Amino acid sequence: MTSPETYIDQNRDRFLEELFTFLRQPSISTRDEGVRECAALLAGMMKEVGIETEVYETARHPVVYGQIIKEGAPTVLVYGHYDVQPPEPLEEWLTPPFEPTLKGGKIFCRGSSDDKSQLFIYVKAVEALKRTLGEMPVSVKFLYEGEEEIGSPNLAPFAETHKDLLAADLAFFSDSHIHESGRPILILGLKGLVYLDLRARGAARDQHSMRATSIPNPAWRLVWALASLKGPDNRVLIPGFYDQARELTELEKKAVAAIPCDEAGLLEYFGLKEFLPGRFSRDYYFNLVSEPTCNIAGFITGFTGEGTKTVLPARASAKVDLRLVPDQRPEDILAKIRKHLADQGFGDIEVSAHHSLIPSRTPIDHPAVRLINSALEEVYGQEPIVFPNIGGAGPNYVFTDILGQPCFVVPHATHDQANHAPNESMDLEGFFKGIKTAVKVFQRLPQNI
Amino acid sequence: MTSPETYIDQNRDRFLEELFTFLRQPSISTRDEGVRECAALLAGMMKEVGIETEVYETARHPVVYGQIIKEGAPTVLVYGHYDVQPPEPLEEWLTPPFEPTLKGGKIFCRGSSDDKSQLFIYVKAVEALKRTLGEMPVSVKFLYEGEEEIGSPNLAPFAETHKDLLAADLAFFSDSHIHESGRPILILGLKGLVYLDLRARGAARDQHSMRATSIPNPAWRLVWALASLKGPDNRVLIPGFYDQARELTELEKKAVAAIPCDEAGLLEYFGLKEFLPGRFSRDYYFNLVSEPTCNIAGFITGFTGEGTKTVLPARASAKVDLRLVPDQRPEDILAKIRKHLADQGFGDIEVSAHHSLIPSRTPIDHPAVRLINSALEEVYGQEPIVFPNIGGAGPNYVFTDILGQPCFVVPHATHDQANHAPNESMDLEGFFKGIKTAVKVFQRLPQNI
Repeated sequence: MTSPETYIDQNRDRFLEELFTFLRQPSISTRDEGVRECAALLAGMMKEVGIETEVYETARHPVVYGQIIKEGAPTVLVYGHYDVQPPEPLEEWLTPPFEPTLKGGKIFCRGSSDDKSQLFIYVKAVEALKRTLGEMPVSVKFLYEGEEEIGSPNLAPFAETHKDLLAADLAFFSDSHIHESGRPILILGLKGLVYLDLRARGAARDQHSMRATSIPNPAWRLVWALASLKGPDNRVLIPGFYDQARELTELEKKAVAAIPCDEAGLLEYFGLKEFLPGRFSRDYYFNLVSEPTCNIAGFITGFTGEGTKTVLPARASAKVDLRLVPDQRPEDILAKIRKHLADQGFGDIEVSAHHSLIPSRTPIDHPAVRLINSALEEVYGQEPIVFPNIGGAGPNYVFTDILGQPCFVVPHATHDQANHAPNESMDLEGFFKGIKTAVKVFQRLPQNI
Repeated sequence: MTSPETYIDQNRDRFLEELFTFLRQPSISTRDEGVRECAALLAGMMKEVGIETEVYETARHPVVYGQIIKEGAPTVLVYGHYDVQPPEPLEEWLTPPFEPTLKGGKIFCRGSSDDKSQLFIYVKAVEALKRTLGEMPVSVKFLYEGEEEIGSPNLAPFAETHKDLLAADLAFFSDSHIHESGRPILILGLKGLVYLDLRARGAARDQHSMRATSIPNPAWRLVWALASLKGPDNRVLIPGFYDQARELTELEKKAVAAIPCDEAGLLEYFGLKEFLPGRFSRDYYFNLVSEPTCNIAGFITGFTGEGTKTVLPARASAKVDLRLVPDQRPEDILAKIRKHLADQGFGDIEVSAHHSLIPSRTPIDHPAVRLINSALEEVYGQEPIVFPNIGGAGPNYVFTDILGQPCFVVPHATHDQANHAPNESMDLEGFFKGIKTAVKVFQRLPQNI
């Protein structure tokens, strides 16, 4: 009997041909270009390997849902997104952005790593398992959305209204990239996000600054309000901000300590003399994983050109993003900020919140962690690096919080993937390693959870 | 014998014709357009009435200097500027910007009020006095520069190197405008100015804000540094900032209290519910005259567009202008700011100062105040409003501090002059009232100082 791994090796060229067909179809969600066609193409390819597939309409771009059920076996829900970023600036592409081109062991194409190859891995894993074993060792469900690059506005609502359809024992999240050393990575969580616009208003129009004796300046109001949020020691001053911030467990701390870190190299790369200390440590990755942040992402008011203009601005606005760790909740943090500003006398500052994200951190002692790690180590020949969570934010809470599933991000792109940039690429071997990793995990899952 | 006033009335048309010739000559200092030609034209017109006139070269645009000496009599130095602002936007002019046009009692032309008519007043006053009295009652010196609209870079250096040439008992400053009620105004001083660029730097490039756990944010540095300069109660926190701020004398306070002020109307005009309180009073004009200020004129960092971008900026910059009252000195205030920032731990904030201005306030009990006031009252038929100083800054300190002369700003343009804007205009009667006021003051000066 052919093993799934052998089957994968024997079918490399055809798998790649099919991936290329998928890649050739533009699916630029932000301007509705080819998204529906891509959903239909993907659904067809999933049906081809025996996955029951249906395209669900949402308020904007469809969800491609599929399932292949093995009665009595555990269920894996695979998440990915078939939409892509726009390819612009076109003049910086060395090959046509929607013509997949193999060069130096990489597949160059918009969407190659983010996220089409990484989600296609699981379609081909199902094929390899079915064709060699005759049946699936686990049930697999597929949730492939077409709106990730525009902020996944319909993902949480879809999950809320399809909880039974999406019920599973665990979720696989296909995105991100492996470590720059080539070591595989397992990511167990993402940070949450609160993104605020803060606005202050003064006089009806900009005034000559000689009137600063009597006319309130919204730039000062905003500076004082911001300074009330965080002090020069970098501690957030919003009362209760840290109350729900869960500390890392001993196992998680051990994992963080094992993340390779060339601090001197990082400092040189960033052009810095030293890093900020966190509340408990100066360690770069410890803080990246465990510290929530309050960051000024932008501030504009008045005259900002060369030279001088003596103006008293009529308005000032700032953007602040706060990254949350479990178990901080966006709505709670937002309420605390509003209360704090009011208590400090900044009730005049208008606070508006953009779409927020809930932090998630799947327990590092979940049995699937060991299972995925050993599969990754066998396929990559190197020990995986485990992140209890990364610094980025994303919709993982849809799985952990809405669907109640432990969620595992298992990347197979390389760090130089250039996603969201010209000449995006997917590592050719990463694609096949991904299929082999999925096959191993699916095969061993019934005995391990 | 014809009186100077009658002479002025009899020569209205010719005076106007000569003014129009002067106005027709563009003299846009910022782009060196017609400035030298205008200096020559003005010098010729001054010689025409018997003023010994010489065009002095400076590093950029020439100074037109003139004098008409009466031995043993007091000397008045008249300051004005013959350069003008660019006329753009051209499409908003209702008449050609350099073709003086009489309409509704106003002369429409670029430079009509700012400052050509106002400086020409003194040339015609000399003519009226000489032609009617046979000789001048006082000595008059003329310092007409061609660089006011570009910040007078060579005025102070010229004064420093020509102190004997410019020696006088008092200076007349021809610029600004009368009160909106039509009452004449006498301005005895201007504020000083310190204008700073503050810059903070972080990483070499903008970073993803997930790195805010470890990478310093220059926007926060600048917010904290700014918040250390002034508190939410609007008091400047720079140690010693107020130490040299001279309080108003009783006479000055009386003058300020007499300035007409429709506070409710001002609040409505500015779109405000209330004005900021000063240290000693809530009165709008009291604070405008006596309070020094520290104003954020601009701040920019990071992402400032619509929507969200989670960026940790690499740099942040702010502009701060401080308006000073006598006897605050720009270099002292700047040193105090630098020391304060260093003491507060903000030595990383780069502070660079633009050209600064020294505050000036001519004593309100100077005998010329009563003299000018009574001349204004006779000519305008209304009691003048006296400002110990206004909120604006300017080069008056060249006269008060470098040349040691009491300095009197006596405007004859109206408040709706639209200087620096399209359709600039000079009130026709203001021009003749100005000549008559100058004639009266020059005639009475020998008996009054």
